[in-house]
Amino acid sequence: MRMSALSQTTGVPVATVKFYLREGLLPPGERTGVNQADYSDAHVRRLRLVRALVEVGHVRLSDVGAILSAVDDDQLAVHDLLGAVQYALAGAAERDETGWRDARAEVDDYLDRLGWRIRPDAPTRNQLADAITGLRSVVGPVPIDDLLGLHAGFARRLAGEEIASLPPADAPRAELAEAVVVGVSLYGQASAALRLLAQEDASSLRYPGPATTSAAGAAPDDRHTGSHARS
Amino acid sequence: MRMSALSQTTGVPVATVKFYLREGLLPPGERTGVNQADYSDAHVRRLRLVRALVEVGHVRLSDVGAILSAVDDDQLAVHDLLGAVQYALAGAAERDETGWRDARAEVDDYLDRLGWRIRPDAPTRNQLADAITGLRSVVGPVPIDDLLGLHAGFARRLAGEEIASLPPADAPRAELAEAVVVGVSLYGQASAALRLLAQEDASSLRYPGPATTSAAGAAPDDRHTGSHARS
Repeated sequence: MRMSALSQTTGVPVATVKFYLREGLLPPGERTGVNQADYSDAHVRRLRLVRALVEVGHVRLSDVGAILSAVDDDQLAVHDLLGAVQYALAGAAERDETGWRDARAEVDDYLDRLGWRIRPDAPTRNQLADAITGLRSVVGPVPIDDLLGLHAGFARRLAGEEIASLPPADAPRAELAEAVVVGVSLYGQASAALRLLAQEDASSLRYPGPATTSAAGAAPDDRHTGSHARS
Repeated sequence: MRMSALSQTTGVPVATVKFYLREGLLPPGERTGVNQADYSDAHVRRLRLVRALVEVGHVRLSDVGAILSAVDDDQLAVHDLLGAVQYALAGAAERDETGWRDARAEVDDYLDRLGWRIRPDAPTRNQLADAITGLRSVVGPVPIDDLLGLHAGFARRLAGEEIASLPPADAPRAELAEAVVVGVSLYGQASAALRLLAQEDASSLRYPGPATTSAAGAAPDDRHTGSHARS
């Protein structure tokens, strides 16, 4: 198909398609003339993935590039692909204070005690040390087990089911790669939204008040106007 | 205490303290001289909370202001305080496409069917519609129950325990407010990190390969250098 058809099929504006091509996030089409190229269904799929990562996953363009390189690297084992996607998302922490280094050492010990198989260089270890440092700066020196036990237990059970729902290791490479990227990145957004919604429901039960309203009759275009403070 | 002592106690540089004062995120100290003010333990606590929200929660300064206004509004019921914090974090989606509006209507219907008590104007509804739109753009028109059922079930059970661990409604206002802010915002980071770590562990079991290494001997300063691709 032509670029205009690619744009129409995916709903991605032509200018954005050209931008992704320039950035190398979308492979070039097959040249069919001086100013023409032909795009395939593979382009449609890749374009949808790139757009979802950028617009929904809020993944930085440079990180999208790293994720796609991993997806396209047929030599990468499935578990390493998951690692590559996670590590692209984790970003880099730049913490050197004593408190943070202590927290980081505790994270290593904690994960060891949990028996979780985590690479020594996983940047997610730093992410967790960031979170612990922040939590402790507010709640004080709470032991790591008390701080994280509840959440770690839930996270591990959910992750077990998430990973079990992925295709088997011998599934077609493209299918597997896409499922990993979706499961790690895009489900992060869905999980975060569901966490907040579930908290609102649980809170309305524990702290009932006149402000609690039913979901019935919600209009899709209700916008946040600070109206929760009106109630 | 003087500003220098406030800075030392909290580890927040004096320049940053002054910046927070100018931005109204920290209330002014009690004037004790032309160029001097006295700060209290309440300032220490507020400063730690602001810094944790900004540095760990990655909350925008304008949103920190909205959260603190809610914390300081004694007239706000606890459940409304939780809403205010969530809504400040949720940001604003700007989606008008048909696909998104359909997803948003499905979200309303889904939450109704789950029986979750969510305000009609909760921006978290938009967040979930964003996530669904993104997921479907990659995985196709999967029914919402199949897309979210697993995650919604876990989210609700975890939220039930999270909210149950908050102080009772008649606890001192400041204690309650801080617990809500920490529980909604800072635990979001810890949850996200634990989710990724738990996925790595589950993946190493389902997709075992030569790259899987033990956590033992991890050094706190291991940095992300793309070394997972080496393995």
